[in-house]
Amino acid sequence: MFPDRLKTAQDGVQAALDAALAARAEVAVIHAMRYALKGGKRLRAFLVLEGAALHGLAAKTAMPAAAAVEALHAYSLIHDDLPCMDDDDLRRGRPTVHVEWDEATAVLAGDALQTLAFELCTDPVLGPADRRIELVRSLALASGAEGMVLGQALDIAAESAPRALTLDEITALQAGKTGALIAFAATAGAVLSNADRAPLAAYARALGLAFQITDDILDVEGDPEKAGKRLKKDIAAGKATFVSLLGIDAAKARARELVAEAEEALASFGSAAEPLRQVARFVIEREA
Amino acid sequence: MFPDRLKTAQDGVQAALDAALAARAEVAVIHAMRYALKGGKRLRAFLVLEGAALHGLAAKTAMPAAAAVEALHAYSLIHDDLPCMDDDDLRRGRPTVHVEWDEATAVLAGDALQTLAFELCTDPVLGPADRRIELVRSLALASGAEGMVLGQALDIAAESAPRALTLDEITALQAGKTGALIAFAATAGAVLSNADRAPLAAYARALGLAFQITDDILDVEGDPEKAGKRLKKDIAAGKATFVSLLGIDAAKARARELVAEAEEALASFGSAAEPLRQVARFVIEREA
Repeated sequence: MFPDRLKTAQDGVQAALDAALAARAEVAVIHAMRYALKGGKRLRAFLVLEGAALHGLAAKTAMPAAAAVEALHAYSLIHDDLPCMDDDDLRRGRPTVHVEWDEATAVLAGDALQTLAFELCTDPVLGPADRRIELVRSLALASGAEGMVLGQALDIAAESAPRALTLDEITALQAGKTGALIAFAATAGAVLSNADRAPLAAYARALGLAFQITDDILDVEGDPEKAGKRLKKDIAAGKATFVSLLGIDAAKARARELVAEAEEALASFGSAAEPLRQVARFVIEREA
Repeated sequence: MFPDRLKTAQDGVQAALDAALAARAEVAVIHAMRYALKGGKRLRAFLVLEGAALHGLAAKTAMPAAAAVEALHAYSLIHDDLPCMDDDDLRRGRPTVHVEWDEATAVLAGDALQTLAFELCTDPVLGPADRRIELVRSLALASGAEGMVLGQALDIAAESAPRALTLDEITALQAGKTGALIAFAATAGAVLSNADRAPLAAYARALGLAFQITDDILDVEGDPEKAGKRLKKDIAAGKATFVSLLGIDAAKARARELVAEAEEALASFGSAAEPLRQVARFVIEREA
């Protein structure tokens, strides 16, 4: 069942990440990388593994891609938490990397985690070289200046903008900031098996948006203890969110609609896609 | 002749970098990326192109790898210049990125330039997928937590260490901080043509060390105007350098020895390797 499958994915990806950083120099930057790679829901890794399973790929075969997306995600969290960015001191229930070490170590650990993500995508276990190079390219496009970094840049620009963002602008911003990497994760299995990416891309588009709307809802209604990070920051900063623009009830209704859309995008896969449908429902029902 | 070949390489790689960032969103992070990609000696790109030519590859074929190493190098300079790292306000004769924009933009521009480097390594122009994936892997190993980032981490740790570094420790530090990326650049042509990397790796090892020793000499004797950055920072910080450990004359003699070693490593290539020998001589004769 879903909780068991998620737990198996979490354990598998943690083992893969531990192995990737075994036998390295015992310096602060490596310690900080290991620290930042602990915990989290591992939703992105789960999407990789379930998307791969849907295309007949064993978990072992897809594991380096699952580890890669978590390494990339961990890098983005470290840098987003920096004082010059979102200035957060709590993440996954623990001090952020620049608080536990210092800013220089946080910058370098994030840098090296991004590098590690690309290194993991070259693992021969993932299959033929032409599939791996497509995976590298797909990760680069999702995470770079046309994807995740662009989203974060737009988010930071919005803080000093003369007016609040519109719903369309926030949707575009989030498509980059969180959506692009979720899309990479969901389509990695299709990339690795050279299958049509379109159904999983459509699933990921709806899922990513539902995920972000739920994040905005949890920022207002969530329990900071469970979240492991500070909440109500957006309200305090007067930032436009899906909740501030839609109202909490309409935001919840929109998230439910998007989950239905995400489930529908998987229709052609039949019952084989049930775990991915469960993820979509989990994404809006989660408490953290 | 060498200056003409270098100029051709500089123009070629700038065009490739311009093309890579054409038609992107007009946001600060993209502007900062373009800014950081201007100027510089382009020694690393030159090494890629000449190492490729030595293996019969046309400049056009190797150009994305040349652009990749410059994008990677530019990212490392932006992050190294940050206030939490070396805190430099001048680079290539212009304000550093965090001075011209702000720290958040500098972190993000560096992040996206690293991503761009890996994206460039996937360009089909570079040849078969198995060669490109080797290039990605080679770049990741050179630039990550076992290469460049490790070197920078050791450098930062040295600043607060209770004693100055020894010659062996500085050599190891520099092998990571500047040597690994120089080695990537020099061997990229061998990687792309699936040839023996050993001769160019030996050349790069000697060249990288000669380069760093010369940097330390220029930090003492150089002209800040020509360097386009602040000098005498190491002395001011009381940091051990090749000059502080060896003395200026012995440092110069050591650099000359290393250039001879670098030239010797290319013996099997005969006169075809002349441009690479000229680079080695240029590296210790340069004024900036």
